[in-house]
Amino acid sequence: MSTATVDAARFPVWREQQQARVEQALSDWVSPTAPVNLGQAMRYAVLDGGKRLRPLLVLACSQAVAGCPAAALRAACAVELIHAYSLVHDDLPCMDNDVLRRGKPTVHVRYGQALALLAGDALQTLAFELLLPEDGSIEPSLALVLARLLARAAGADGMAGGQAQDLASVGVKLEQPALEAMHRRKTGALLQASVLMGAATATLSAATTARLADYGAHLGLAFQVVDDVLDVSADSATLGKTAGKDAADDKPTFVSLLGLAQAQAYAERLLDQAHAALQHSGLSQTDTLHALADWVGRRAH
Amino acid sequence: MSTATVDAARFPVWREQQQARVEQALSDWVSPTAPVNLGQAMRYAVLDGGKRLRPLLVLACSQAVAGCPAAALRAACAVELIHAYSLVHDDLPCMDNDVLRRGKPTVHVRYGQALALLAGDALQTLAFELLLPEDGSIEPSLALVLARLLARAAGADGMAGGQAQDLASVGVKLEQPALEAMHRRKTGALLQASVLMGAATATLSAATTARLADYGAHLGLAFQVVDDVLDVSADSATLGKTAGKDAADDKPTFVSLLGLAQAQAYAERLLDQAHAALQHSGLSQTDTLHALADWVGRRAH
Repeated sequence: MSTATVDAARFPVWREQQQARVEQALSDWVSPTAPVNLGQAMRYAVLDGGKRLRPLLVLACSQAVAGCPAAALRAACAVELIHAYSLVHDDLPCMDNDVLRRGKPTVHVRYGQALALLAGDALQTLAFELLLPEDGSIEPSLALVLARLLARAAGADGMAGGQAQDLASVGVKLEQPALEAMHRRKTGALLQASVLMGAATATLSAATTARLADYGAHLGLAFQVVDDVLDVSADSATLGKTAGKDAADDKPTFVSLLGLAQAQAYAERLLDQAHAALQHSGLSQTDTLHALADWVGRRAH
Repeated sequence: MSTATVDAARFPVWREQQQARVEQALSDWVSPTAPVNLGQAMRYAVLDGGKRLRPLLVLACSQAVAGCPAAALRAACAVELIHAYSLVHDDLPCMDNDVLRRGKPTVHVRYGQALALLAGDALQTLAFELLLPEDGSIEPSLALVLARLLARAAGADGMAGGQAQDLASVGVKLEQPALEAMHRRKTGALLQASVLMGAATATLSAATTARLADYGAHLGLAFQVVDDVLDVSADSATLGKTAGKDAADDKPTFVSLLGLAQAQAYAERLLDQAHAALQHSGLSQTDTLHALADWVGRRAH
């Protein structure tokens, strides 16, 4: 496997290679010793789907800093497991009540709500297990840092907190700062943590880490703005999930706040800021991270 | 605070002191910076209730081995957070659909299903965060061991796996080995992990750790057998939850398998084995652990 970063032209090949690595690792790690029904639901939730954006951010960042590849692969899979668990729980009838995800029936449609609930719970636990191997594949002090970054980004101060703010925001007119604060938790925290986990696989200066944190924050917010744009401009078949959900659910979005054209322009500005943060990082091998930011901005789903 | 173990006569005082310590620590740690709605639901789920059996096992075992008190208190709270999250999710309509827990309305009755789901999710994350402090209150290699023990006990090979086996067992006639295998995961893994986390706060011989693991396994299974006995012999007011649920849900129990008298006798035998394991542990300060086993056996709820 290549550990060099790649320019825009070679990015699609790199992306497919890394997606395949992540798919294989997830298939190996989810979750061979679980009871049959639980293991099936966990694998259905995780395998054979998704852009793997968060794992790609971990891997690209780790490669940019010449970090430990074995730790990066575990971190990449751990963050994807957190993302996958959140989707399973989000899709439940008591939350978003979604029946379609990545073009397939959602986990509770396929396996029932009770098993979907447990599969989500067990995927979260497995994320931490992956970061705490006994086999020495992650140096102990690094394992601790990675697990800490993941826990902060996933919990009440991160993703789960943002989801709770989202629940409280239905039918409420949020101003842009409040909307951004919610999304920095709900989707931004885990995307930024992906970058920071990749960064943690090497020893960096505080300044470089801070610029990578900026990159992750700008990219994370851009991701959400693009998501809101796609929710009104793409169809369900392209998205692989139900389009138009936010408006139907009366949730505030960047499009409802700014209008479509202004939301698109805002996403571009955020991506420019992400690129600028990389340029000031002091790192020389940032091509793949630049390409990932463009991929986030130009994606169709 | 006392770190000596106590005999049976002083056990109730010790228990109340330690329960108060755990309550205070949980109140400090759950979850001051969370969004208001989520923080309220998390605190409601965790505070002011429960026997705190798992924390007491961690603390008693840590005191028996003269382990690090600060690490033990974090581990005690972490294991309670995992227990609390599992109760919140278990009580949801798609699982056990329980409206009463510890004599109060369950979390989803009080805060709605969506927030209950998120509160459970965030409590699980917080359990791992507690074990990964940046303040040096847990030595890094110990933090890693504690988080690993907790993850294994909580996930697909432990509690969540046992719950999935439980789901698959409704209306099924299980033989005793299958019933025990389910309960060793569903309730036993976390109870045993409580003992092992307490043990991990000091450096012990493999033989002593193995005997403590035996103690935890026997006590864990005894706890479940007593639970099944209480489900048919106590009323809802005493239990603080709905009595008679297992029979109503057509779930296999030790009572349905063995009959009431034989189930009671089996619990006694398991507790005898727990006591014997302590006697062979090579530890001299095991009075509190003995008293805890008796408490599990004689409890009324």
